[in-house]
Amino acid sequence: MPCGLEDEIFNYSPYGDGTNDVEDIPGLGQYDDFQTIDWQRDLARDRMRHRYLVKRSTDSIFDLIKGGFDASSGWLCVLFVGLAAGTVASVVDIGTTWMTDLKYGICPEAFWLDEEQCCWSSNETTFGANNCSQWLTWPQMLGVESEGAGSYILSYMFYVVWCLLFAGLAGMLVKTLAPYACGGGIPEIKTILSGFIIRGFLGKWTLIIKSIGIMLAVSAALNLGKEGPMVHIAVCIGNILSYMFPKYGRNEAKKREILSAAAAAGVSVAFGAPIGGVLFSLEEVSYYFPMKTLWRSFFCALIAAFVVRSIDPYGNEHSVLFYVEYNKPWMFVELIPFLFLGAVGGLIGTLFIRANIWWTRFKKNSKLGQYPITEVLLVTLATAIVGYPNPYTRMSSTRLIYLMFSQCGIANDDLLCDYNRNFTDVNSAVELAEAGPGVFQAVWLLSLALILKISLTIFTIGIKVPAGIYIPSLCMGAIVGRLVGIAMEQLAYNYPTFWGFSGECSANSDCITPGLYAMVGAAAVLGGITRMTVALVVIMFELTGGVRYIVPLMAAAMASKWVGDAFGKDGIYDAHIAFNDYPFLDNKEEFGHTTLAADVMEPKGAKTLSVLTQDSMTLEAVETILRETTHNGFPVVISRESQFLVGFVLRRDLLLAIGNAKRTQDGITGESLVIFSPTLPTQWVGPPPLKLRRILDLAPITITDQTPMETVIDMFRKLGLRQTLVTHNGRLLGVITKKDVVRHIKQMEDSREFYNLPFP
Amino acid sequence: MPCGLEDEIFNYSPYGDGTNDVEDIPGLGQYDDFQTIDWQRDLARDRMRHRYLVKRSTDSIFDLIKGGFDASSGWLCVLFVGLAAGTVASVVDIGTTWMTDLKYGICPEAFWLDEEQCCWSSNETTFGANNCSQWLTWPQMLGVESEGAGSYILSYMFYVVWCLLFAGLAGMLVKTLAPYACGGGIPEIKTILSGFIIRGFLGKWTLIIKSIGIMLAVSAALNLGKEGPMVHIAVCIGNILSYMFPKYGRNEAKKREILSAAAAAGVSVAFGAPIGGVLFSLEEVSYYFPMKTLWRSFFCALIAAFVVRSIDPYGNEHSVLFYVEYNKPWMFVELIPFLFLGAVGGLIGTLFIRANIWWTRFKKNSKLGQYPITEVLLVTLATAIVGYPNPYTRMSSTRLIYLMFSQCGIANDDLLCDYNRNFTDVNSAVELAEAGPGVFQAVWLLSLALILKISLTIFTIGIKVPAGIYIPSLCMGAIVGRLVGIAMEQLAYNYPTFWGFSGECSANSDCITPGLYAMVGAAAVLGGITRMTVALVVIMFELTGGVRYIVPLMAAAMASKWVGDAFGKDGIYDAHIAFNDYPFLDNKEEFGHTTLAADVMEPKGAKTLSVLTQDSMTLEAVETILRETTHNGFPVVISRESQFLVGFVLRRDLLLAIGNAKRTQDGITGESLVIFSPTLPTQWVGPPPLKLRRILDLAPITITDQTPMETVIDMFRKLGLRQTLVTHNGRLLGVITKKDVVRHIKQMEDSREFYNLPFP
Repeated sequence: MPCGLEDEIFNYSPYGDGTNDVEDIPGLGQYDDFQTIDWQRDLARDRMRHRYLVKRSTDSIFDLIKGGFDASSGWLCVLFVGLAAGTVASVVDIGTTWMTDLKYGICPEAFWLDEEQCCWSSNETTFGANNCSQWLTWPQMLGVESEGAGSYILSYMFYVVWCLLFAGLAGMLVKTLAPYACGGGIPEIKTILSGFIIRGFLGKWTLIIKSIGIMLAVSAALNLGKEGPMVHIAVCIGNILSYMFPKYGRNEAKKREILSAAAAAGVSVAFGAPIGGVLFSLEEVSYYFPMKTLWRSFFCALIAAFVVRSIDPYGNEHSVLFYVEYNKPWMFVELIPFLFLGAVGGLIGTLFIRANIWWTRFKKNSKLGQYPITEVLLVTLATAIVGYPNPYTRMSSTRLIYLMFSQCGIANDDLLCDYNRNFTDVNSAVELAEAGPGVFQAVWLLSLALILKISLTIFTIGIKVPAGIYIPSLCMGAIVGRLVGIAMEQLAYNYPTFWGFSGECSANSDCITPGLYAMVGAAAVLGGITRMTVALVVIMFELTGGVRYIVPLMAAAMASKWVGDAFGKDGIYDAHIAFNDYPFLDNKEEFGHTTLAADVMEPKGAKTLSVLTQDSMTLEAVETILRETTHNGFPVVISRESQFLVGFVLRRDLLLAIGNAKRTQDGITGESLVIFSPTLPTQWVGPPPLKLRRILDLAPITITDQTPMETVIDMFRKLGLRQTLVTHNGRLLGVITKKDVVRHIKQMEDSREFYNLPFP
Repeated sequence: MPCGLEDEIFNYSPYGDGTNDVEDIPGLGQYDDFQTIDWQRDLARDRMRHRYLVKRSTDSIFDLIKGGFDASSGWLCVLFVGLAAGTVASVVDIGTTWMTDLKYGICPEAFWLDEEQCCWSSNETTFGANNCSQWLTWPQMLGVESEGAGSYILSYMFYVVWCLLFAGLAGMLVKTLAPYACGGGIPEIKTILSGFIIRGFLGKWTLIIKSIGIMLAVSAALNLGKEGPMVHIAVCIGNILSYMFPKYGRNEAKKREILSAAAAAGVSVAFGAPIGGVLFSLEEVSYYFPMKTLWRSFFCALIAAFVVRSIDPYGNEHSVLFYVEYNKPWMFVELIPFLFLGAVGGLIGTLFIRANIWWTRFKKNSKLGQYPITEVLLVTLATAIVGYPNPYTRMSSTRLIYLMFSQCGIANDDLLCDYNRNFTDVNSAVELAEAGPGVFQAVWLLSLALILKISLTIFTIGIKVPAGIYIPSLCMGAIVGRLVGIAMEQLAYNYPTFWGFSGECSANSDCITPGLYAMVGAAAVLGGITRMTVALVVIMFELTGGVRYIVPLMAAAMASKWVGDAFGKDGIYDAHIAFNDYPFLDNKEEFGHTTLAADVMEPKGAKTLSVLTQDSMTLEAVETILRETTHNGFPVVISRESQFLVGFVLRRDLLLAIGNAKRTQDGITGESLVIFSPTLPTQWVGPPPLKLRRILDLAPITITDQTPMETVIDMFRKLGLRQTLVTHNGRLLGVITKKDVVRHIKQMEDSREFYNLPFP
């Protein structure tokens, strides 16, 4: 130990005055479960540690290497997170494909292959839907003829049974092993990233069960996606791997940098959208997002996308889910339907959020909430029974979205593409054509599918299996969009001379692409539900490769957000945060009220503030205060009479320090003075005092009682405070904690709704 | 006037306690030139104004409309900014094309047409470079044969003369009419957005002269681009249009929201990259960027891009500058050259920045700096004379970049595409082929062009004409990349069996695309010079439409940044900010020193702090302090003895209020008491007092003397403070201003360089 270090330990102060954070009292600087973290304190601790390492690095070559490792550990950590997230995502993708196909049949020669791989290995040239002899459907396995009612009913039964099996298993796993693995997890991740501790939410069991559960839940044909859970999975990976690096594992504020990067990687692997992932992390989930984190997130997302591309679980070279081939320019006049789609998306989003929250509240207050597995099975049963007969609900959501986005080329033989057109040349453009009877049938089936999807998704999001909202939203939107697209296409076919089409819609040209409308509709509904804008557009065009369609996507996203916000500000995540009363301080909303710090601070009225004095309280008095109050910390003042503020001490630190002193220091009694000042008071005789200056924060953030709450909220948001002390002309008046602030905002919001002002 | 308003005016306080900001004293809340703005105060003023309007909105239908207009004015303003920015950008584009062609010849029938339009109107089917009879080169106009040495020399002369004319005119315009219009303007915009006032920098003259000047400068074939200046032009538009909306025009903090959005629109129109623009604004130029601004920037960029797309100045449908057609997947092994290109880009960037700063410093200290027009003419002359003979330096930079990015398809007859290959089918892939003699010649010419471009650009950036660094950077990078690409291609042709190519490089396949290397190289050099990452990649792939190449671009951008940062942290903008000593508080750099607020605060040593007391100073005493000091504001304390802090008052407000009182209030003499407290002191007899409580900020931000400077810097950055007051146990000790903080950071940085620690 280099000389002088002992002094440094002695001079230890939570906010650091040039010393290091060698924590001689174990547990100092950690948090209990469900506590708010103190960003400033944690970041200060990290800077101290860093400086200590830099100082040591000149001592020996070992210390130099240690310092170098520490300096690069941020990049190393996100590298590992990216690699792990990519790998897990690929495994989940492969598993999901296999189990999804398992509902219909099996590859008897190699049961671990899904239908496509099974048929691929068979070397048959045409391996369409039911054209491969290696792959046997369940009726075929049982020896039943593959045509006819018997086979259909048998397939139906197998389908329903598999769905129930998968969903039930997922529910059981979640219930017994990892209760935090249910749902999407994004509201909780937002809360955690905003500086809150929820132990176990990002643990290894959550990771494992969520990964398995999401494969089961998606395979059970429920109306949910694996994209939201993928973010949760990636953040779990980030949390677990951060423990490899003391810089991040032992510092909650720094750890959140890794978690932000991991969230970006999660979206990156879920959609094959690395840039969209970074923007998602920035716009939607992150709270503290310095530029350094932007670069690391970028790197993390890149690595993760790269791993997925290398493993190639989708089996195409694009590493994007819904690659679209067309790149036909769009016309000016099409902005009208795009904006219309945006508005519809905003409406659907708002309705969905309200219905979902209403149902969640109803469940919470009813007996149904006590039988989660029953609920899972009921929803699955309904989804499977209602879904099977309609080809558009039977196919997986991702396949349906892909179909909606695609163009009716020569190879597409779906009902949807039953146009009266002749393909003379493979390379020719897809001409405008009259819809055949198949298209009309498809329109009816799709309308039905839309209604089913919307109503079932409302009940599905909230059941106790891992469940994401992205794919269902995209799915609903894609259907709406495709329907509008088909309508526009037939309009253009019947009225090609309408001036808006500016002559581009002559008989043999391709002037309207219904797939593009599906894309725009998907973005609109997803925007309406999540209220993302920039991240949404980037994800959408990374998802589809449709770089040409930024303007339509942007227009729809804006319209969707405007319409949605007109009916209620919160996206689905914020709505769930508000519903669950998480201590989340939104950094988007503006606070427009005129309250002052004096109105919010505790104590109010006749109550007095619990304070410690710097050099006149005995250990017994301090312990009495600790026993009788539950505050997380106490201001330290010069004397009770003057109330001039000296500093702030945390309850946890105080308890640890007192316990430590009792163990290690002789002669400590209840009569010992507790001293926070640098020197002992003169003329003191008695038992040896407890010197606790080193646990005293000498630089607490203070405000005056006249500070408007807007400024106070701004300080809490931007500085990441846990509490602030309120003074008047230098005298301590009270304390405002983060929870006081969140409560106050909620109160004021409620009162504003009551007054119902004309504009916010 | 509704009843009660008079009270509100009386109770006016800068930080608002529920009153409005009807400014009865003109000029209150404004700033002088070269001052730092107080974000908290300005935002508080805006919230007060907003609340006042909301309150009034129930009074009458007129007030309701006024309130509605106010609520939507943010969106309206960015809408107008987007429209205007798109229009101006299109005009600049068209003008530039025309003037660039004017160097070579003219369309005698319609002189206002550029070569392409001239030949387009001629209805000739083949309108290649010199194949149109309508377009006459200058030798042709003079009746000289178009072939032969005479014609060449004449063309050369005309070229040089036009270049000198354009550049000289640009220089004259800038010098005489708008000195702020020179250069790119981005360092200054960063400084302004961080909260600094530079009057005239964003004014209408700057806008007009910069728009004209950039057309001239680009047409003069100088090594500069119009993309950086386009950002400046857009921000000028934002500033000018913000005056239409009092919410933004009269509030410096709110105005910066519009300016951030305008910067996004600037990049959006410059590159046809709306999302890249938003990210550029976020990552590079903006300081205060709430989520609301993200959405508005997005909208503004969308509108601007849309206008450009509608006017279509590039004459292609992509509305992107360098649309690439190929979408061939890249191979794993190619990551090695991509990373290599990234490293080279980082090196070129660092060298460029150092050389440019060195040259700028040299000019500043030498006589050359006093003759800006001479300098412009000299640089132009050198560029024109050296540039004309080499076809790659003669063509415009944008055309060169396009050529570098493009694939050697059947239609490309440049030297660069002189491969020994036969195109049998138009649709066939571009096979790997042996380079012909033309390619080798092109490689030599390109190497020469690269050296010329690098050295000339160093001298060009900094001359007194509008000049952007983007296009020159992209150009250098594209050349480097293309050279590496050709090398890789020939490597693959000669050693197709190398395992890294994993069998994809058989004789008749297209396995290496040199154009992709050019793209990656361009991103690398641009990254090395600007140190952008995410914004860079998004701009690059919006610029080229190469959505497949995100990973290569990301890899090169990261490598470039790492290598660049190893040799010097600052990008070109930050380097210029540091060189010019702008009061810019970087929000990216971490401050890693152990100083405390007590070390930085003023006054130090024996000097005493200039304070006012709340109720015991006469007007004469206050005016003496105002005369004898130059501080921008003064703390108000209870009494000089106790130094307990009451509030803070700004010099400007104090001067205005005193002047106002002298004009409007009778009996004010030098003996009048200046009262900041709510009540008069008891037993006071004398002339009527000056009640100034309403200009007193009762909630100044305070810190303790033990606060680490890291925290203080964080507060300045995140809360946008102008100053903070330093207290100890409630007593006022001193003041820290933003300039103190910037100075302190600079001092500490310099001392760190002195110690030369092993890692930062």
